[in-house]
Amino acid sequence: MNLPLARLCTALGYRFQTPGWLEEALTHRSASARNNERLEFLGDALLNLIIAEYLFQHYPKASEGELSRLRASLVKGETLANLARELKLGDWLRLGQGELKSGGYRRESILSDALEAVIGAVYLDSGFSACRDWVLYLYRNWLTGLSDASDLKDPKTRLQEYLQAGQRPLPIYNMLEIRGEPHAQSFTVECVVAELRTIAVGSSRRKAEQESARLMLEQLV
Amino acid sequence: MNLPLARLCTALGYRFQTPGWLEEALTHRSASARNNERLEFLGDALLNLIIAEYLFQHYPKASEGELSRLRASLVKGETLANLARELKLGDWLRLGQGELKSGGYRRESILSDALEAVIGAVYLDSGFSACRDWVLYLYRNWLTGLSDASDLKDPKTRLQEYLQAGQRPLPIYNMLEIRGEPHAQSFTVECVVAELRTIAVGSSRRKAEQESARLMLEQLV
Repeated sequence: MNLPLARLCTALGYRFQTPGWLEEALTHRSASARNNERLEFLGDALLNLIIAEYLFQHYPKASEGELSRLRASLVKGETLANLARELKLGDWLRLGQGELKSGGYRRESILSDALEAVIGAVYLDSGFSACRDWVLYLYRNWLTGLSDASDLKDPKTRLQEYLQAGQRPLPIYNMLEIRGEPHAQSFTVECVVAELRTIAVGSSRRKAEQESARLMLEQLV
Repeated sequence: MNLPLARLCTALGYRFQTPGWLEEALTHRSASARNNERLEFLGDALLNLIIAEYLFQHYPKASEGELSRLRASLVKGETLANLARELKLGDWLRLGQGELKSGGYRRESILSDALEAVIGAVYLDSGFSACRDWVLYLYRNWLTGLSDASDLKDPKTRLQEYLQAGQRPLPIYNMLEIRGEPHAQSFTVECVVAELRTIAVGSSRRKAEQESARLMLEQLV
């Protein structure tokens, strides 16, 4: 392994037996036809499973919906990009000229995709168990900071509590449209808070309302 | 283990060391507060990873988009429900009275959720490697039937080829709406083929068009 990559391995806390996997994980599609997109596909699935299992084991009373929401907050691009920045992963990316000039090494999606690709690379390098250990090490600060029970509440509840805390009027949910055959309907719902409006589609009225509330929280908070 | 569950294990091709996991996986939420929803959450993530890795290894030249589409066809509810029917899983489900009367043991979502829960149960019973072996055994006929390269084409290409084969006019894609801040826009696109219209939302124009084409193919084929 060349010296710079060895330094990155130190930062990662993982030493590659086959450094070629790491090199591929650091190569953006703008730099080469052999790039990190396939590894990202694999790493995304690994991350989803590893975080799912951690939450399943550590929150034995959480419902499936609560586990899903917790996981979503941990595997979203923003969280991954923050982890990538802590590792200074951007310094090691191989980007094409265009992306280099436009500062692609700082872009959230490029950073989060590369970190997912590194997760895939660790798996190919040494298997599931070592990859799980490394991902949980990578996430150690995020996982220990998860104790806030509000993360476990659903978006409609959180939106209501947020508005009540500010003594503001409660949200109104309106059904805008029901489409599709009876066994495969999709529901379009709007959430209205004063002058703000969000719209979401879901496979049930409840799911569409929850998603519209989540979008509203994003606008408000 | 009681005799009926032992018979199910024979059908599954997997013998549980801790039959309690299997019992939980077969329990619908209509039957008990201790039901299969959490196991389904875990099993869904396992299935996504196991199929992702299989495709990654067996299609070394497939792009990330092609791998994603192949996986989607393998892990969708319809495929899982078909597998569940082959195993006669519906005969072993524990359902509440309401679901029993309305024939819930035949419903696609209940069957596919239960099979995902069984995958989670196998993992808890004997770990990742054994779970992967079992899932690939379960999917053996679907995976060997994957050779059709048309599965690898994107929906817009498949829709175009389908319409050309029938000497019908090509689809028209219209941008209906662009919402959100520049760094987090969502694009609403419609796909029009004669009197049919499908609408999809995506984080890029390309993704929304592909999704609208996929929905159109579902209507046409």
